[in-house]
Amino acid sequence: MSLDTSVKAGKAPTAELNAAERLADMATADMRRVDALILDRMGSPVPLIPKLARYLVEAGGKRIRPLITLATARMLDYQGDAQLKLAAAVEFIHTATLLHDDVVDESDLRRGRKSANIVWGNAPSVLVGDFLFARAFMLMVDAESLPALHSLSRAASVIAEGEVRQLAATGDVNVSEASYRAIIEAKTAALFAAAAEVSGIVANRTEDEIAALDRYGREIGLAFQLVDDMLDYGGLSATLGKKTGDDFREGKVTLPVTIAIAAANDEERAFWTRVIADKDQKDADFEHALDLITKHGALQATLEAARTHAANAREALSGFPDNVWKTALTDLADFVVERAH
Amino acid sequence: MSLDTSVKAGKAPTAELNAAERLADMATADMRRVDALILDRMGSPVPLIPKLARYLVEAGGKRIRPLITLATARMLDYQGDAQLKLAAAVEFIHTATLLHDDVVDESDLRRGRKSANIVWGNAPSVLVGDFLFARAFMLMVDAESLPALHSLSRAASVIAEGEVRQLAATGDVNVSEASYRAIIEAKTAALFAAAAEVSGIVANRTEDEIAALDRYGREIGLAFQLVDDMLDYGGLSATLGKKTGDDFREGKVTLPVTIAIAAANDEERAFWTRVIADKDQKDADFEHALDLITKHGALQATLEAARTHAANAREALSGFPDNVWKTALTDLADFVVERAH
Repeated sequence: MSLDTSVKAGKAPTAELNAAERLADMATADMRRVDALILDRMGSPVPLIPKLARYLVEAGGKRIRPLITLATARMLDYQGDAQLKLAAAVEFIHTATLLHDDVVDESDLRRGRKSANIVWGNAPSVLVGDFLFARAFMLMVDAESLPALHSLSRAASVIAEGEVRQLAATGDVNVSEASYRAIIEAKTAALFAAAAEVSGIVANRTEDEIAALDRYGREIGLAFQLVDDMLDYGGLSATLGKKTGDDFREGKVTLPVTIAIAAANDEERAFWTRVIADKDQKDADFEHALDLITKHGALQATLEAARTHAANAREALSGFPDNVWKTALTDLADFVVERAH
Repeated sequence: MSLDTSVKAGKAPTAELNAAERLADMATADMRRVDALILDRMGSPVPLIPKLARYLVEAGGKRIRPLITLATARMLDYQGDAQLKLAAAVEFIHTATLLHDDVVDESDLRRGRKSANIVWGNAPSVLVGDFLFARAFMLMVDAESLPALHSLSRAASVIAEGEVRQLAATGDVNVSEASYRAIIEAKTAALFAAAAEVSGIVANRTEDEIAALDRYGREIGLAFQLVDDMLDYGGLSATLGKKTGDDFREGKVTLPVTIAIAAANDEERAFWTRVIADKDQKDADFEHALDLITKHGALQATLEAARTHAANAREALSGFPDNVWKTALTDLADFVVERAH
C-alpha cells in the first residue's frame, strides 16, 4: 500500500483498511482512469452543468458500484478496457438517480451537505440528471458492447420502476415485506447487478458465469440497501450518529418498520397509522418508533436478512477461480453488512 | 387515401390534407407498428407508469419526429425494420423531455390538457420521464446499431444542455439572437436531426448522405421551433386562439422578444426589463408586449428566419433521388412554416 493511497483514504499508513477501502486501494490505477473519464464526460460548454455535476461527484461516497465493475473485470482477468467506460457509466446513472431522488423526496441533505436541489433548485437538478443519463449512454456506446448496453439500460428502466413503486408505497402501513423487497431489488439491487454483470459480458464469459455475476451484484445490493435502511434508524448502535430518521419523516416504509408493524398490537398500529399514513408526527415520535422497532427485534431481523444476502453474494462467486480480486469482492459482501454495527 | 385514415385524421374524406397529415397518411402502416411498439414498451407492472405515459402519448400531437424517421427510411428505400424501433425511441425521448420540461417550467397545461405534473405531481413526472428515457435506450439496443445509439444518446445529452442553457437565459433581457439560436438548436433541432440521421445510419448510407439527413432534420427543427415561438405570441393572425403567452409569463426570451428588445427605445427597454427580468407583470402587459413586437416587425422577421431554415431543409434533400417520400418530406418543411399563418 502506497503512502499516497493511505493519505487519500484519510488514514494513517499503519491503520487497518476496511474491505471497501482495501478494494479501492487495489483498484487505484483503474479508478484513476475512471475518475478521469467521469471528469471529462461531465464537461459541457454550459457552465452550470459541470458545476452541479462536480458538486455531486466530488461529494464522493465510496464509489462502490463502479468499484464492483472494475474488480469483477480484474477477477475475470479481462484484458480489454471497456470496463472503465462501463464503470463511469454506472457512476453517472447512480449520480443521475441521486439528483432525481432528491427532487422526488424533497430532500435537504445528501451525504451531509445541502442537496443539489436545495443549492440550485429542482429544475437544474432534473436537467443535469438527464444530462448525466444521456452521457452514461454515450459512454456505454463507446464501450461498444450492445449486450452491456442492454444490461445497463434495462437496469435504468427497472430503477425508475422501483422509484415509482416506492413513491406509491410511501405512507402505506400495509406494505408487505414482499413489496418492500420488490422495491429495493428494483431501486438499488438492479444497478449493482448490472455493474457486476457487464464485466462478464465484455469479458465474453458463459451465460452461467454472467448470471453468477448478476447474482453477486444483486445480492450485495440487497444487503447494502437493507443495512442503509437500518442505519436510517441508527443501525445496531445509535452512538454512530448515523440515525437520520429521513425515511421515517418521509413516511417510507422500510423493512424495520414493516416488521414492527406486522408484530404491532392495536395501540402500536394506531401509532404507525398516525405517523406514517397520516404523516402526523410530533417531536418524540421518532424515538417511540425506535422503541417499537427495538421491542420487536426489527433491526436484528433486518440485519439477519442482510447477512443472508451477503452470504448469497459470496456464494455466487464460489464457481470462479480463487484470486486476490475474488477475495476482495467476497470481503466486500461482509463489509456491507458490518456497516450496520 | 382510405376512409379509415381520413376518419382518423378527423377530416371528411374529400377535405384536403396538409403536408403533415399527408405524410402521416402515407406512413400509416409503419406508424401503426410504431404505435404498437410504443404501447408495448411503455408497459410496466407498476400501474402508475403506463397510466401516466399513456396520458401523454395519447394526447398525441403530430408525432412529427418519428414520422421523419419513418419517412426518411422509406425515401432511402431501406429494406430493414430498425427504423420502427428508432422512431419509437425518438418519440419516447421526446415524451420524456416533455414530462421533465413541464416540471422544470412549472407548467399547468400541455396540448390543451392539464399537464402530468399537475395531475400526478412532480415526482411521478420526473420518474416516469426517467423510465421512458431508459426504455428509449432499450429500444435503440434492440435496433442493434451502435452508430444510431451514438446519434440519439448524443442528441439526448445536447437536449439537456439546451434546456439548462434556456433555464440560465430565462429572465435575461440581454440574450442575443446567437444565444437564442444555440438554445433552440440544442433543445429542439438536435432531436429532429437525430430522427432523420438514424435512418441514413441503419440504411448504411455514405457520410455525406447521413450529414445531409442530419441537416434536413436540424433545419426543419429550427423552423419548427421558430414558428412555435411565434405562435406563443399568436403567430401572424391572433384569431387562431393559439396566443398562449406562456413564454412571456415564464420570462423566456425567444426570437420575437430578442428582436423587439434589440430595437427598443429607452421606455420600451424599461418595459421589457420590468416584465422579463423583474417578472413584474400586470394584466395588460402581454398585449403591450405584442404591440411592441408588432411595431418592430419581430414576428415577420421570425417568420423570415423560419422560411430560411425550411428552405435549407428542402435543399438538404436535393441530392437524393426523387420519389414520393422525398416530395412529402420537402412539403413537410413548408408545412412547418405555414403553421405560422
